[in-house]
Amino acid sequence: MTREREVLVRFRPSGREAFVLPGTRLVEAAAEAGLLIDVPCGGEGSCGKCRLIVVSGAAEPTTIERKWFSDEELQAGWRLACQSAVDGPAEVDIPSVSLATVEQKILVRYQKKNQGKVSELFSGKGVPTPFSDPPVRKQYVELSSPTRGDDLPDALRLERALGVGPLAMDVSLLRELSARLREAGFCGTAVLAGDRLLDFEVGNTEADAFAVAVDLGTTTLAGELMDLGTGSEWATTARLNPQTRFGDDVLSRILHAREKPDGLARLQEAVVSAVDEMIGELCLQAGVPRQRVYELAVAGNTTMQQLFCGVDPGPLGEVPFVPTGGRGVSCPAAELGLHIHPRGGVYVMPAIGGFVGGDTVAGLLATGLTDVQRPALFVDIGTNGEIVLLADGRLSAASTAAGPAFEGARISRGMRGGPGAIEKVVVDGRLRINVIGNVPPAGICGSGLIDAAAELLRHRLLSCEGRLRTPDQCAPLAEPMPPDLAERIVLHDGQISFLLADEAETADGRPIVLTQRDIRELQLASGAIRAGIAILLRRAGLEPKDLELVLIGGGFGNFIRRGNAQRIGLLPIEIERRHIRYMGNTSLAGARLAALSGQARRAAEELARRAEHVDLSTDTDFSREFAEAMIFPEGAASE
Amino acid sequence: MTREREVLVRFRPSGREAFVLPGTRLVEAAAEAGLLIDVPCGGEGSCGKCRLIVVSGAAEPTTIERKWFSDEELQAGWRLACQSAVDGPAEVDIPSVSLATVEQKILVRYQKKNQGKVSELFSGKGVPTPFSDPPVRKQYVELSSPTRGDDLPDALRLERALGVGPLAMDVSLLRELSARLREAGFCGTAVLAGDRLLDFEVGNTEADAFAVAVDLGTTTLAGELMDLGTGSEWATTARLNPQTRFGDDVLSRILHAREKPDGLARLQEAVVSAVDEMIGELCLQAGVPRQRVYELAVAGNTTMQQLFCGVDPGPLGEVPFVPTGGRGVSCPAAELGLHIHPRGGVYVMPAIGGFVGGDTVAGLLATGLTDVQRPALFVDIGTNGEIVLLADGRLSAASTAAGPAFEGARISRGMRGGPGAIEKVVVDGRLRINVIGNVPPAGICGSGLIDAAAELLRHRLLSCEGRLRTPDQCAPLAEPMPPDLAERIVLHDGQISFLLADEAETADGRPIVLTQRDIRELQLASGAIRAGIAILLRRAGLEPKDLELVLIGGGFGNFIRRGNAQRIGLLPIEIERRHIRYMGNTSLAGARLAALSGQARRAAEELARRAEHVDLSTDTDFSREFAEAMIFPEGAASE
Repeated sequence: MTREREVLVRFRPSGREAFVLPGTRLVEAAAEAGLLIDVPCGGEGSCGKCRLIVVSGAAEPTTIERKWFSDEELQAGWRLACQSAVDGPAEVDIPSVSLATVEQKILVRYQKKNQGKVSELFSGKGVPTPFSDPPVRKQYVELSSPTRGDDLPDALRLERALGVGPLAMDVSLLRELSARLREAGFCGTAVLAGDRLLDFEVGNTEADAFAVAVDLGTTTLAGELMDLGTGSEWATTARLNPQTRFGDDVLSRILHAREKPDGLARLQEAVVSAVDEMIGELCLQAGVPRQRVYELAVAGNTTMQQLFCGVDPGPLGEVPFVPTGGRGVSCPAAELGLHIHPRGGVYVMPAIGGFVGGDTVAGLLATGLTDVQRPALFVDIGTNGEIVLLADGRLSAASTAAGPAFEGARISRGMRGGPGAIEKVVVDGRLRINVIGNVPPAGICGSGLIDAAAELLRHRLLSCEGRLRTPDQCAPLAEPMPPDLAERIVLHDGQISFLLADEAETADGRPIVLTQRDIRELQLASGAIRAGIAILLRRAGLEPKDLELVLIGGGFGNFIRRGNAQRIGLLPIEIERRHIRYMGNTSLAGARLAALSGQARRAAEELARRAEHVDLSTDTDFSREFAEAMIFPEGAASE
Repeated sequence: MTREREVLVRFRPSGREAFVLPGTRLVEAAAEAGLLIDVPCGGEGSCGKCRLIVVSGAAEPTTIERKWFSDEELQAGWRLACQSAVDGPAEVDIPSVSLATVEQKILVRYQKKNQGKVSELFSGKGVPTPFSDPPVRKQYVELSSPTRGDDLPDALRLERALGVGPLAMDVSLLRELSARLREAGFCGTAVLAGDRLLDFEVGNTEADAFAVAVDLGTTTLAGELMDLGTGSEWATTARLNPQTRFGDDVLSRILHAREKPDGLARLQEAVVSAVDEMIGELCLQAGVPRQRVYELAVAGNTTMQQLFCGVDPGPLGEVPFVPTGGRGVSCPAAELGLHIHPRGGVYVMPAIGGFVGGDTVAGLLATGLTDVQRPALFVDIGTNGEIVLLADGRLSAASTAAGPAFEGARISRGMRGGPGAIEKVVVDGRLRINVIGNVPPAGICGSGLIDAAAELLRHRLLSCEGRLRTPDQCAPLAEPMPPDLAERIVLHDGQISFLLADEAETADGRPIVLTQRDIRELQLASGAIRAGIAILLRRAGLEPKDLELVLIGGGFGNFIRRGNAQRIGLLPIEIERRHIRYMGNTSLAGARLAALSGQARRAAEELARRAEHVDLSTDTDFSREFAEAMIFPEGAASE
């Protein structure tokens, strides 16, 4: 019997390698090499997304691959990672679009590009730098071995070498410490969380210390892996919150937790296992073992945070909508079922109130809003829209149920901002769209939705009341309507709709349209937010024009175009456009600071208690404001 | 079918009651009422210890009961709790001697009686009072209910009512807090451990807060339940350390942990489940639910403490005998498998070194030795003898392997100091013995052993070398030997032995003798301790006569008679007798302080680091001192 030999597969451009048995699918070989290839269809060969080029050592194409590629492409080595198996040593090019990392980075990348710009507006004081007072630090030490003349207990010997003490430690570590010190020859790396010894690692592992930040969105979960020492990003990921199968919004999940058997346990299990999988993806992307992740910081709205911690959200579903906690929660990650270092910790952001949660606190932390000396507004657009007004040094915070439209949910062809999403819509003579990842469009994300509605308003194909019009229903315009635009008003499933991409252009051969119902969803979402802004301004005795800074947060795709956000009435038209800044996913950015800095955590606790919690549902003006905000602003159509 | 009715049994003098089914044995009915009756033979009716009087409703006596009681006694209602069954409503007198509490209290009672006296020797400053800075405190509060105008999160509402904050809490409590507050109608009792909320209990439970102290002896485990608020004792218990089945001394247990599969796990499980059972007994005695015990403090030698925590004692068994920890260990009780309040904590005392552990630190804490301004010595006599010398403000601490003789082990008829133990032996014309519990003798405990040897030395029936002599081998005495004494030198199993009680006098019909081998065990035990004392004194440049205070600790039965301890050479004969004080179980007394006071814990940590750890085995003089100390002092025989 001959022993089967493993063969070498080399991946470019990373240069990573893996030894695998012949017959191993390329997707598995890549994973073996630490490269995560995106397989949206689960490896059935039905989506064609996991394409790559086998430069040398290509196997015969499968029947499925013959459907996806021309003969020329197959000849050039194009294959599907989920179908093609290794049959000898091979060299493989992975196009970056096939790597999961590319998709995943979309949702977290932009706010960084922008944070630099916006921070110039601030004095900077009080904004914690990400790397001050890290929650976990490492120190390599060489201890003298015990002798009869120096028989200090092991833990005290370590304290002496570190020059610190007294150090506390968990019994689980105490049980391992003596063996670990001896295994390490009394040289190794102490992992310290304040005055607590988390671990003693063999060898010098000072450079290997990581933290994970998670934005726990109602619709979307986003995560990032950072170096605890330098703060640099090593990997990012995002996915649909699996709790959406129990309901789109927080209220439906509160009901599910209350009324279904094991409802709370199932909601918690869904989100915790998703976050745990995300940690696994982040670690795989970066080639970092899970046990080198020592801290996790999580930001979400109050309901999401309670569900994550397994705390019954029942009281959040009835008057007067009271959260259980309030302070940030610090607990062992293992206690929540998360797999990082066995003694690693989780920090869950403090909440302001039942409607304004840790995601908003994270946003305040990340934007440094409170350092601004002028009237300023922070709006975090997600499934809930959270609004914080800073006026005369006082913070007031409210939340409105915007719904998941900006994240692509409840929109007929909506999707979140990943490859294939139409993220930008411009009409200059003809319709032009921009698709994330430079691939055929597969749907539309939040920023594209705002653009499309704004352009339709501008060309009077959409009335101020939100009715899509055929060209002949439109009032005469100063300049004639571009013919391309007029032709795109179509009947789709019996509704007047706007055609963004026809069946020949799309990834799945189905046209992408914006329906009358989609427009209604958008009106509800933006109306809710604008009504909230109006109430907070009125309570402070301010007008929209008084605002000298408006910071927009949210992970809904890509840049939000300020003018278009005003055109559709998401933001009051009276705000000077130069004062509006898009900050990206501020919840994730704040969670990142908390993951990297104890000082940031203390600042978050203080911010949460400083903000006044405003319950919009008790405001008698809210319904009227909401109804008014449903109407697109008059001025918008004429601009 | 008729349903069987439970009947009421009332116990006197406590007045406790229980409803039980007819046929229930009285021992079980008593347990149902929270009264623990001592059943040494395990309920077989073979020891006759569990006697009580059924005042009304007595069942017919059993055959076994007829053996133990006369007709008159049976007529008067005397029965055995383990034999007699309930057959209708009954009223029962339990003599206090039958209650387990009586036996159990022996080992912890005396040092209290004495602490008062000894504390007069001290200035008192620096000795922590037991009730300062309790580790857990309770506060009853009435909160206002949340309203739309006052929608503060539940945890912050509680902080506001308590007038404290910020409060941390475990996720396990966070999960229950909102339901608990509502169940309690927003009135209840907060349980606080520093700035951590341990629980919120329905109603006013301020008076129900308890702690347990445990002395983790190599041979004997002793425990006490105290009121956390007042420090008063509610119950005590003691038992053989079940680890003795794996070996008598720490070294044999270290070997067992190292060499047997699951050795460490089995050693830990044995002691932890014994302590957990003791907690159950204490709670049953006092009628306190386990979840009202919030703190546990444990003191033992270094090996015992490591085994208790599940820390491999391997390095303690080889040169240079290094402990793993050093600092006190604070951890959740549940993590060690102990059942008190689900978030209750355990504190394990800090250790001085591999040979001098938390029991010695506890002793220093309890005796206040360090406040003394004169040369002073503390000797804790257990299976290991720990010795601490205070000279010129410096503490030096050493340990010697005395063996378990003082606790009754390895002595042919030895037993620990409970009912039936001969605890005092005096010869004045004839032999007189004192038996604990005023029952027929069953064996001899440590203090009786010291007395017996001292009397034998005094009457020259024991040579200075430790040889038992027949009366004709003795040199002529000034006064004639009491005839009663001469007759008690007997041959027993081929060894010359001293008869303490003949078969007619004892509980089991077997004579109680002190054999030549027992004398050797005593010589080894006291010689080891005296050699240790000699070395520490020499290192400090002191003579025994320089000592102005000698404090003796140990749970070995009852008062140690100072003169006799000197006669047998346990303590140097040159020490002025008035300077010697017996302090009782100082390890348990120190654990009690640590259970009741955070200040005591900090003092313990400081004491542990202040003491210099002396390894006697590296002292070249030790073997010679030990050999010399094996010889009984010359002067002793002539006094």
